[in-house]
Amino acid sequence: MLSSPPVRLGELVSAVTALSARELPASLTCDVLGSEDLPIRRLGTLSDESDGVLSFVANPRYRKHLSSSRAVAVFCAPALVDALPTGCVAVVTPEPYLAYALASQWWSARAVPDALTAASSSSSVHPSACVDPGAHLAAGVEIGPMVVIERGARIGAGVRLGAFCFIGAGAEIGADCILHPHVTVSERCVMGSRGIVHSGAVIGADGFGFAPEPLSGRWIKIAQLGAVRLGEDVEIGANTCIDRGALDDTVIGNGVKLDNLVQIGHNVQIGDHTAMAGSVGVAGSAVIGAHCTFGGGAIVLGHLTVADRVHVSAASVVTKSISTPGHYSGFFPIDDNASWERNAVSLRQLDALRRRVKALEAAALNTGG
Amino acid sequence: MLSSPPVRLGELVSAVTALSARELPASLTCDVLGSEDLPIRRLGTLSDESDGVLSFVANPRYRKHLSSSRAVAVFCAPALVDALPTGCVAVVTPEPYLAYALASQWWSARAVPDALTAASSSSSVHPSACVDPGAHLAAGVEIGPMVVIERGARIGAGVRLGAFCFIGAGAEIGADCILHPHVTVSERCVMGSRGIVHSGAVIGADGFGFAPEPLSGRWIKIAQLGAVRLGEDVEIGANTCIDRGALDDTVIGNGVKLDNLVQIGHNVQIGDHTAMAGSVGVAGSAVIGAHCTFGGGAIVLGHLTVADRVHVSAASVVTKSISTPGHYSGFFPIDDNASWERNAVSLRQLDALRRRVKALEAAALNTGG
Amino acid sequence: MLSSPPVRLGELVSAVTALSARELPASLTCDVLGSEDLPIRRLGTLSDESDGVLSFVANPRYRKHLSSSRAVAVFCAPALVDALPTGCVAVVTPEPYLAYALASQWWSARAVPDALTAASSSSSVHPSACVDPGAHLAAGVEIGPMVVIERGARIGAGVRLGAFCFIGAGAEIGADCILHPHVTVSERCVMGSRGIVHSGAVIGADGFGFAPEPLSGRWIKIAQLGAVRLGEDVEIGANTCIDRGALDDTVIGNGVKLDNLVQIGHNVQIGDHTAMAGSVGVAGSAVIGAHCTFGGGAIVLGHLTVADRVHVSAASVVTKSISTPGHYSGFFPIDDNASWERNAVSLRQLDALRRRVKALEAAALNTGG
Repeated sequence: MLSSPPVRLGELVSAVTALSARELPASLTCDVLGSEDLPIRRLGTLSDESDGVLSFVANPRYRKHLSSSRAVAVFCAPALVDALPTGCVAVVTPEPYLAYALASQWWSARAVPDALTAASSSSSVHPSACVDPGAHLAAGVEIGPMVVIERGARIGAGVRLGAFCFIGAGAEIGADCILHPHVTVSERCVMGSRGIVHSGAVIGADGFGFAPEPLSGRWIKIAQLGAVRLGEDVEIGANTCIDRGALDDTVIGNGVKLDNLVQIGHNVQIGDHTAMAGSVGVAGSAVIGAHCTFGGGAIVLGHLTVADRVHVSAASVVTKSISTPGHYSGFFPIDDNASWERNAVSLRQLDALRRRVKALEAAALNTGG
Repeated sequence: MLSSPPVRLGELVSAVTALSARELPASLTCDVLGSEDLPIRRLGTLSDESDGVLSFVANPRYRKHLSSSRAVAVFCAPALVDALPTGCVAVVTPEPYLAYALASQWWSARAVPDALTAASSSSSVHPSACVDPGAHLAAGVEIGPMVVIERGARIGAGVRLGAFCFIGAGAEIGADCILHPHVTVSERCVMGSRGIVHSGAVIGADGFGFAPEPLSGRWIKIAQLGAVRLGEDVEIGANTCIDRGALDDTVIGNGVKLDNLVQIGHNVQIGDHTAMAGSVGVAGSAVIGAHCTFGGGAIVLGHLTVADRVHVSAASVVTKSISTPGHYSGFFPIDDNASWERNAVSLRQLDALRRRVKALEAAALNTGG
Repeated sequence: MLSSPPVRLGELVSAVTALSARELPASLTCDVLGSEDLPIRRLGTLSDESDGVLSFVANPRYRKHLSSSRAVAVFCAPALVDALPTGCVAVVTPEPYLAYALASQWWSARAVPDALTAASSSSSVHPSACVDPGAHLAAGVEIGPMVVIERGARIGAGVRLGAFCFIGAGAEIGADCILHPHVTVSERCVMGSRGIVHSGAVIGADGFGFAPEPLSGRWIKIAQLGAVRLGEDVEIGANTCIDRGALDDTVIGNGVKLDNLVQIGHNVQIGDHTAMAGSVGVAGSAVIGAHCTFGGGAIVLGHLTVADRVHVSAASVVTKSISTPGHYSGFFPIDDNASWERNAVSLRQLDALRRRVKALEAAALNTGG
């Protein structure tokens, strides 16, 4: 699939170790055991049978797959070097997965011709784009076809906006952000630098706020006067929604990563470097800590507080605040349908069963006494 | 953030009490205890430390937050007037949350320069919009950039269509609807007056209907010949999907409010003033009553009937029809992961446990006899 | 709603039986019992009171509804012919639902004037579309308004692209595909022939891949170098997301049907003719078999394998690989809230309860011995 000329591992590794200080943790260094002159044609998995694959092994469990790999070079931890097949170059690092991540960025920027990466220093605005004269575009932006930018919006240096992006009045897109096609950033919302937003994401739709009219039961809309503020290095998945606040803003911390189809309600706060997998939902005014992770489909109810370093399993429902770091779960274990049905029926009588056991215990105590 | 000139509380309150008859319930009146001349600069929460905040307190539980509030005026119930700090104006009403909702609409329309509210009486069609000559636009519409309106579509008076909206052939958008950027309304779908649709919502995609071919297992598509009909005052969240019917229409009642990322299957019917939070899913042909509420991530299976005034908790799965109003729940309680694992393992043997208890009871009976 | 001239049943049935060999299973034949000259004006349900309804009955449970139907003709199985009301024409087939599906396609193509069906042999490209000179358009394509097609993309014969579709660089859209408005197909992704994609779907956003930086907890992005490959006859629902692979491609088999708001993670593989209902989520690298079905909101965790012909109930979480065909379930049964609360509390002590029962059994054994 990739038809660019091969690069040499030496060049690759020097590039990895020479990445900018922001990108490269000081602790990450790679030692190359073997020839540095092998041509790398592709990043791939250990089982990729293509020629010239640079691969990685991050988990010691995969040791057994190493001997049969056709990779020409592998990022690996020191303990796995001896498991590599003969002739395979070891690129040794205590953090092979991290090294692979950095290498993949490097590869994407240089070897994938159509990758959406940092724009050049000269700006380009597609003639079909509709940019309000009252919007401000910094240097080096790349504005794709059919983009709409409203009055007062500010587009930072190096930003790339894909086709059909909508930037509302007064919104601000920080430097070096990449917005893929079909992204909506509503009025007055703010993105920090180096953010990435995937197609179909909606940042700044109205929060879901209504006051019930007591007699009629009609819902009276509460105007959503706040906005959304995203920190730096935030990545937002496809068709994910982050609602604007009712009075204050919805606030997403630095380095937060949200997968696709995630729903973030109004006035939610998410701490730095928290990650949420696909289809997670966070209801309004929940306050989520830093360095948390949420598995796919997890739900957080409104107005709760979740501490830093809390990890919630997929499909689990956070119904009360969590103040202690740790791993939390709550979903019904899957089973063959007949077994599930039997257990589900019994579950609906569980409290009664518990009382029956209590009665048996009391009776046994009496009998024993 | 808001730089408009301050408004006086007297003006605000008179505006609130002077809103149109449709907006303002006759029962809602506010008594102002204190000076009516305080300048209001912002609607805010009780803890907002900005100058000139008009706030509200809807829940008696928040009484304790009142004394430390810097708000200059507060919508509150009569019972909370004595808890306000000295100098703070009480705007007294039996329905402070409702009053706040109405005030927020008023504020948004007058003080937020870029709010999408009712269009002026003169129409505007952005030159980049693509409007079929066979479409009909009523007076006072505002058609944003890059909008596409197909033949036979009818756009009611005062409608505002944001950028990139698509209105399919023969669709009808009722008067005073607001469609935010990137909304799709497919052919022949109908929206009642005063609807609001947020970005990315898709109204009228094909329902999910296929007939299995017995031998091959291939799925043969069933053409979806119906449409979607939305009542008046309906609000649809970002990236929410409402599918068109297979034969008859999918029908959403008046005043229904759907949050973001909600999925409504084909031929669903939803009664008036029902509200569904984010990521709810309703499978095909379900019939939902009026004045129901569904928590985030709840699921309703297909072909079921749910009565009026049924309230379903978040993440609960409605697997059978519900004929009695009430509050229904069904999700696994979250726990620390180790506890959850132990209980989940036991849960898979629950029916066996129930039978063991039954045997113990029988034995105890024999022993006792 | 449909104002096209009536068609005659004879014409309809001959059309059904004369559909192309690809569309019509050889085993499907219809016998018409009654006049073939009844004018059909509408496909409808058995309870549709319109004039000239052609209906169907697929489930013997609906026998009781037949006698009161006003339909002029009904697709039905031989065993139900005697239940039809007098004068109603029986279109007899062992597979009435399949016959109805085929008839609905035929009806849509001929009687619904705005149906998106196969384009004519001459191409049309809307003047507002933005097609890169380096893109390749086959014969007979229909490119809607505001469409963007990037360099190197290939659009197959007979393809219809709705308004605002985005086809990225090097992507390939197979012959006779229909993409509704607002679809995103990212760079290098490939769709097989006869695919249908509904509005807002995003094919080829980046997979959710990050390496944690050990000390800082920052997430380092892993460039997503793979693409998405869809087989033939695939249908993708509105706002559904299928992520591109990290190294290899995400692969969706022939005949797969995904409903709305489905999330497919990177490097997932889905076998032929598997169907997933709304809001399903499949995490990265899961391998799903052929002929599977997933109920709405079901979740499959990452790196699992699911065998062919596995059927997962709605809202169930697949947490381990499934190697045996069958029906699997796992969700908390819904109950009135008070009962649910009692049982949920007991559930959190279930393992302790199990141990208490064990102790009782041991005590009973001692007593008995």
